[in-house]
Amino acid sequence: MNEIIYKPIGIIRTPFRDREGMPIQAAAAGGVKGTIELDPEMVPGLRDLAGFSHIMLLYHFHQSRGYSLEVVPFMDTELRGVFATRAPKRPNQIGVSVVRLAAVRGNILDIEDVDMIDGTPLLDIKPYVPGIDDREGVRTGWLEGREELMRARKSDDRFG
Amino acid sequence: MNEIIYKPIGIIRTPFRDREGMPIQAAAAGGVKGTIELDPEMVPGLRDLAGFSHIMLLYHFHQSRGYSLEVVPFMDTELRGVFATRAPKRPNQIGVSVVRLAAVRGNILDIEDVDMIDGTPLLDIKPYVPGIDDREGVRTGWLEGREELMRARKSDDRFG
Repeated sequence: MNEIIYKPIGIIRTPFRDREGMPIQAAAAGGVKGTIELDPEMVPGLRDLAGFSHIMLLYHFHQSRGYSLEVVPFMDTELRGVFATRAPKRPNQIGVSVVRLAAVRGNILDIEDVDMIDGTPLLDIKPYVPGIDDREGVRTGWLEGREELMRARKSDDRFG
Repeated sequence: MNEIIYKPIGIIRTPFRDREGMPIQAAAAGGVKGTIELDPEMVPGLRDLAGFSHIMLLYHFHQSRGYSLEVVPFMDTELRGVFATRAPKRPNQIGVSVVRLAAVRGNILDIEDVDMIDGTPLLDIKPYVPGIDDREGVRTGWLEGREELMRARKSDDRFG
């Protein structure tokens, strides 16, 4: 299949210089502050965004090299299929996080609950809309009963 | 910023040959069935996925050409910043949908609530996990009070 080429629209700034000690999901990153430095050319695309309390960020796991189709996730001791995990070493290394939008100042967005490494290339911003992005009556397979652990536990360098 | 190159991991098959009459969000696509034809090399990555009732798909809006930073969304008459909408004509044309996973059969995944055009290139599959992907106490800016409309209304060819 043909390659698809994207160009980052900005950079995500966070307190996390490397993977150690960083939260593994935005939901575990309560209150951690970061900023988005958007390409100034993209600023017209931010119109009306400030009205949303939460935004979905799509970004590139730029510090991951290569991938494995089977991985041992953070909160587990067993090998799992990579598509049944959120591990960064994926065939296409795209991350998705929902963060709180605190302010929009020109091309700078103040965000909270960040869980990315400083310098992460940003691919897209979408409004987070309940009823579009969430579901009820969900089964979570091998993660069943471990979601709390996933939200609380910090990253190690397993996926370095 | 440097370009990022991805290679599709599969193709999404749906009943929608073009944009007209298709749902604009998975949440509006109740019961519409589709399949994922995964690259057979990727099958080991599906291990444990069948335990999840819902999966998040990341895909490329392959029929959209170019983009606008300001757009008039489906359920609106006013110009909005593209990052405050889900319009496909975005700087990086990546779509995100949560669908129901009905079955995994080798490299074929049966899915429901599909809202993509037939032949859409698939970039990633992630497990959908409540508490990771959803948020409470959300404000939705210009969409406030229109979420029901968004879930119900069908697409036209405005973003053709």
